[in-house]
Amino acid sequence: MVPYSKLQTEELQSLLVSLKSVYKEYQGLNLQLNMARGKPSNEQLDLSMGMMDILGSDDDLICEDGTDCRNYGVLDGIAEAKQLLGDMMEVPADNIIIYGNSSLNVMYDTVSRSYTHGVMGNTPWCRLDRVKFLCPVPGYDRHFAITEYFGIEMINIPMSSEGPDMDLVEKYVSEDEAVKGIWCVPKYSNPQGYSYSDETVRRFAALKPKAKDFRIYWDNAYTIHHLYDEEDYIPEILDECRRAGNPDMVYKFASTSKISFPGSGIAAIAASHNNLDDIKQQLAIQTIGHDKVNQLRHVRFFRDIQGMREHMRRHADILRPKFEAVIEILDRELGGLEIGSWTRPKGGYFISFDSMDGCAKEIVSRCKKAGVVMTGAGATYPYGKDPHDSNIRIAPSYPPLADLKMATELFALCVKIVSIKKLLADRGAL
Amino acid sequence: MVPYSKLQTEELQSLLVSLKSVYKEYQGLNLQLNMARGKPSNEQLDLSMGMMDILGSDDDLICEDGTDCRNYGVLDGIAEAKQLLGDMMEVPADNIIIYGNSSLNVMYDTVSRSYTHGVMGNTPWCRLDRVKFLCPVPGYDRHFAITEYFGIEMINIPMSSEGPDMDLVEKYVSEDEAVKGIWCVPKYSNPQGYSYSDETVRRFAALKPKAKDFRIYWDNAYTIHHLYDEEDYIPEILDECRRAGNPDMVYKFASTSKISFPGSGIAAIAASHNNLDDIKQQLAIQTIGHDKVNQLRHVRFFRDIQGMREHMRRHADILRPKFEAVIEILDRELGGLEIGSWTRPKGGYFISFDSMDGCAKEIVSRCKKAGVVMTGAGATYPYGKDPHDSNIRIAPSYPPLADLKMATELFALCVKIVSIKKLLADRGAL
Repeated sequence: MVPYSKLQTEELQSLLVSLKSVYKEYQGLNLQLNMARGKPSNEQLDLSMGMMDILGSDDDLICEDGTDCRNYGVLDGIAEAKQLLGDMMEVPADNIIIYGNSSLNVMYDTVSRSYTHGVMGNTPWCRLDRVKFLCPVPGYDRHFAITEYFGIEMINIPMSSEGPDMDLVEKYVSEDEAVKGIWCVPKYSNPQGYSYSDETVRRFAALKPKAKDFRIYWDNAYTIHHLYDEEDYIPEILDECRRAGNPDMVYKFASTSKISFPGSGIAAIAASHNNLDDIKQQLAIQTIGHDKVNQLRHVRFFRDIQGMREHMRRHADILRPKFEAVIEILDRELGGLEIGSWTRPKGGYFISFDSMDGCAKEIVSRCKKAGVVMTGAGATYPYGKDPHDSNIRIAPSYPPLADLKMATELFALCVKIVSIKKLLADRGAL
Repeated sequence: MVPYSKLQTEELQSLLVSLKSVYKEYQGLNLQLNMARGKPSNEQLDLSMGMMDILGSDDDLICEDGTDCRNYGVLDGIAEAKQLLGDMMEVPADNIIIYGNSSLNVMYDTVSRSYTHGVMGNTPWCRLDRVKFLCPVPGYDRHFAITEYFGIEMINIPMSSEGPDMDLVEKYVSEDEAVKGIWCVPKYSNPQGYSYSDETVRRFAALKPKAKDFRIYWDNAYTIHHLYDEEDYIPEILDECRRAGNPDMVYKFASTSKISFPGSGIAAIAASHNNLDDIKQQLAIQTIGHDKVNQLRHVRFFRDIQGMREHMRRHADILRPKFEAVIEILDRELGGLEIGSWTRPKGGYFISFDSMDGCAKEIVSRCKKAGVVMTGAGATYPYGKDPHDSNIRIAPSYPPLADLKMATELFALCVKIVSIKKLLADRGAL
């Protein structure tokens, strides 16, 4: 394919006319498609329906240690759930606290606790003039929403396929005591699907923070969410931090939201014993304990980490064709045109698309006008501000395959139209 | 019975010797009994086991409005759960937000949000020099723990069988802008089992707070937790506040913890739309939504408020004999001795006992040494400080009836021993 930038102005103008006419045809279809959020499809949800039968009225709801899951108690989770999620999160079971249904809630509570009561005896953030977080970009909008809500200043850190720019991370963390955290999705990152390199993880573990209460917020949301047999691997961060002499420097988060049922799964934090003791002081005030029956339901359904990994292969069988369809269409429609680039994740829930500068908002808007909802342009940046107006997150998981193909084709069409308009405008020829 | 205070010193001394010998016999039994926490008994938990069968893999998990409970979404709860808990909490469904598994967690989050972000646009409490809460005493230790954790100054308000001392409440609330809340368990109160009078409720609704962000924390934990067909009734506080021109002055809390399964139930807040809008701004940052499958499970199991009330009558059939056994033993063993008084609740989970001043700690300690664990003396007061050292909370729900009777008999024995020692000490005759 010839790059659009190499085409004559007249060629571009004529192309624009014909693309717009195709766009009009799409508009006539009254599409209602959604590639906005990383929701599992109904077919994926069906995989976990056996969970509804696993605890019946004739079953005992008693843990291995004799705890009756039906009654009050057990602040940090039943032992067998800690084992299962420990295995999933690659840490010992006693480095785990099991929470309720949402890791986002755990992250919110973690920031909120730091704000109201401080981290391991350090000054509560509400008593400080400035608190800052580093935000690898593009990243996860809900992370940024939490820090924004608490008035925490967010600093963009560029991502590459190796992970965040570690030179910059090291500089900020070691020089600025106001920098208290960094949001990370280290494996199959949201939205690019990048997995941090071994070197990146080790540089994280070896950070020398100026602030004693600096913590890495390691949201391992996609730890076992592979698309292929060949799986991405990243070093385990708690262990790396311990070996680097920074045992307390990281909080690790995960949940079964995209393993069992989103909203009805179980979430957990993994951290050093010092951190867990600190957290439990607050947790004991906040609750008597989380939903143990649901913890037991998960353990009895998955049995162990092997059962869970097997289950994830069935998810992958549904997700893989969707990712491949999107990438195949982008390759076919946009390959070689030099008007955008896209990632090729081997796991996770998203594909990241970068348009020419200044085009993302209009692409998303054009998609919407033809009935295809994308994640808002800018959402992948703190404060919703993408300085290049170029990043768009594509979520292929939810729509049925046929819908997804149509939506992606429309998306590619919009990319072409908006890019040509941009090129023509730059040439003063629009 | 002759009051102990009327007995001769020699009579008391001789009685003490024989009571101590009975106590020694109890110690020989190596009892391990617990009347400390308001936990439902296994027999009560069995009542809800049908809930384990109500959603099976062949059932759809779809709400009446088409929402798939298995996937993400629905911040404030599914419509049918809002209806059920609205009926339970005596408010319209649209005055409800459904939360996770614990109303304590909802209360914690409510205080935490007020602390970090303020109430409906008012100054966040973390920016104020002083924040105070009124605490009707005796009261619920976990309420007091929340306010203590946030450094909120707690002021004791004496309880009577009509509710808190409203003269005092009105004075503090109308005069002191630092007073931001009051903890209430208005029906079958913890620990006395008192239900506020109509006048008390109406005086609450008619409060004229100096602080715009003053809220009544109305923990209606035992709203349908009756022991008898003849039920206590209290006016509905949201409605009363609205009619008194204070529509935004109250947060009402409840959960199904002692209806279905403690820790695996659903909790809710009820409040005005202004308050709910304020809360949802924060909630949208904290979570994508709570456990909808569990919400649906509750709705399908109880069907409606009639089903829930019927279920509560089965709880009552199990609880009533336990309450009656405790009261019968206290009447028989301590009646007329004038060394203590106790309440006769018609609902809820507790009986409150008041010993002679300065005796509660020793009574609880003596019980423990003979193998009967009671709620710690002082726990029913802020900071764990009962100024009279007299209040003891009795929780009859959990032990089997035979155990409960033995534990209560031991308790009565300890009350006698400690009271006699106190009387003798006062006479300089110990």
